[in-house]
Amino acid sequence: MTICRLGYLGPRGTFSEDAALIYNSRSERMLREHPTIASVITALMGGELEEGLVPLENNLEGGIAATLDLLAKQDGIYICYELVCPVSQCLMAEKKMEAGEIKQILSHPHALGQCTDYISRYCPEAECLPVESTASAAKSVLGRPGTAAVANRRAAELFGLTLLAEGIQDNEENTTRFVVLSRSDHPPTGNDKTSLVLSVPDGPGTLYQTLGYFARRNINLTRIESRPSRRIIGDWLFFIDCEGHRSDPGLVELWEELKQAVPFLKLLGSYPKSSLPAHIPGRPDN
Amino acid sequence: MTICRLGYLGPRGTFSEDAALIYNSRSERMLREHPTIASVITALMGGELEEGLVPLENNLEGGIAATLDLLAKQDGIYICYELVCPVSQCLMAEKKMEAGEIKQILSHPHALGQCTDYISRYCPEAECLPVESTASAAKSVLGRPGTAAVANRRAAELFGLTLLAEGIQDNEENTTRFVVLSRSDHPPTGNDKTSLVLSVPDGPGTLYQTLGYFARRNINLTRIESRPSRRIIGDWLFFIDCEGHRSDPGLVELWEELKQAVPFLKLLGSYPKSSLPAHIPGRPDN
Repeated sequence: MTICRLGYLGPRGTFSEDAALIYNSRSERMLREHPTIASVITALMGGELEEGLVPLENNLEGGIAATLDLLAKQDGIYICYELVCPVSQCLMAEKKMEAGEIKQILSHPHALGQCTDYISRYCPEAECLPVESTASAAKSVLGRPGTAAVANRRAAELFGLTLLAEGIQDNEENTTRFVVLSRSDHPPTGNDKTSLVLSVPDGPGTLYQTLGYFARRNINLTRIESRPSRRIIGDWLFFIDCEGHRSDPGLVELWEELKQAVPFLKLLGSYPKSSLPAHIPGRPDN
Repeated sequence: MTICRLGYLGPRGTFSEDAALIYNSRSERMLREHPTIASVITALMGGELEEGLVPLENNLEGGIAATLDLLAKQDGIYICYELVCPVSQCLMAEKKMEAGEIKQILSHPHALGQCTDYISRYCPEAECLPVESTASAAKSVLGRPGTAAVANRRAAELFGLTLLAEGIQDNEENTTRFVVLSRSDHPPTGNDKTSLVLSVPDGPGTLYQTLGYFARRNINLTRIESRPSRRIIGDWLFFIDCEGHRSDPGLVELWEELKQAVPFLKLLGSYPKSSLPAHIPGRPDN
């Protein structure tokens, strides 16, 4: 039997690697680091990977634009699993220093956005500089006194940095939802969710009418996110998650109704509902 | 009479400065550059400004998280005007070179996100590095051969750079919507919009029920954007724009109904509907 190849958004030392390690603890996969979300999806389509793990949304910052846009336009890939991972942001630097002495703080824009309260209170003089990942922020503080990074604990270990503060995110319930993508979705388990994306016809009340198809069948929406469409029919796309598997009779009927009613409709997949993982499993530190 | 002081998100050479200059051509204001969106709003609350101009959403990338979150939690400021400005992204460098020779591309993450198709086609080897503004990207390419910036034409002029390509954004209809904030909103003009933010009660069908209040009064929604709430009641906030002024009888009645129906409701203001500006007015180049 061939080992399943799982691609994830690198580099090592990011929250995506944390999520890949959590997922991998279920059954062993060959982990492959990718530089971008688009590259994970291209490798999946090209048959170089069986599965790809990408971030979908953060409960403070909202949807990850790159993932949502690619899912809306790419045929033949489906969500087959979700993981909701707690995010604990840490402040780190090469050597111990007080938060007030920090001149510059580097991190991914989402991570900086998650720590605005802490930064404005404890490091009001610091300049925030966005970089491409939390791991590259951590790596970049080496040899730069006065500069700190916001990243995860794992990054501090990887690059030998000193932790100045832990859990500095604005909201203690900061979580990121990752999804595993594959060329087919997950069979029913009895406790599932279904993700889809649609646009609604022009005119007043059309989103209201569309949500009515779900409400009349008592299908609970667990999330709705509207995004401007990128060249896809309609001005707005609505990313909707609802309870149930696409093979459930209620969802089968809903799908037939929606197909008639909306100009654009695409299944993103059915998959088991996540329960929060207890912890990140132990891992070698090579 | 005192001249009105208008704060905007700096630095000079960004699309926000373009928008401030367009707005200023209506009647002259004293322009004040601010380093962050939060600082514009703080200065407005503290009486150092009469008006503040900030970006609200881009039609490709979606809502500007910092503006939406501040509007949802800050009492006493209202949207009094909107401007929808076309965005033309340009590729620029210190000296003329071919797109394929570019090793690094610097820009604000939103601007990089707007040009992903162009960059992956013409500069597939280039590494994209997010920085804090399009203007700082332009400034940073000085003295760095092989490095280009994505920014507006104005930035190329300000920093004496060579334009390599113009209009490189994925979508020709790329626009950013800016709003002018003030301590009061705009009187009715007969062609107005109203912005509000609300959360809906827990349970199935509650967003559907809430949108029903608008649909039954034939109040047209021009935009809905859901965002995870940050410490405000409810898991999600819905930013809604609808047609009409809050003093219109239909909207007065809608407001009374919504107040009873939803756990959180906040007026963001009524203001005249934007028509696209023809061009950016001429300006001194000091």
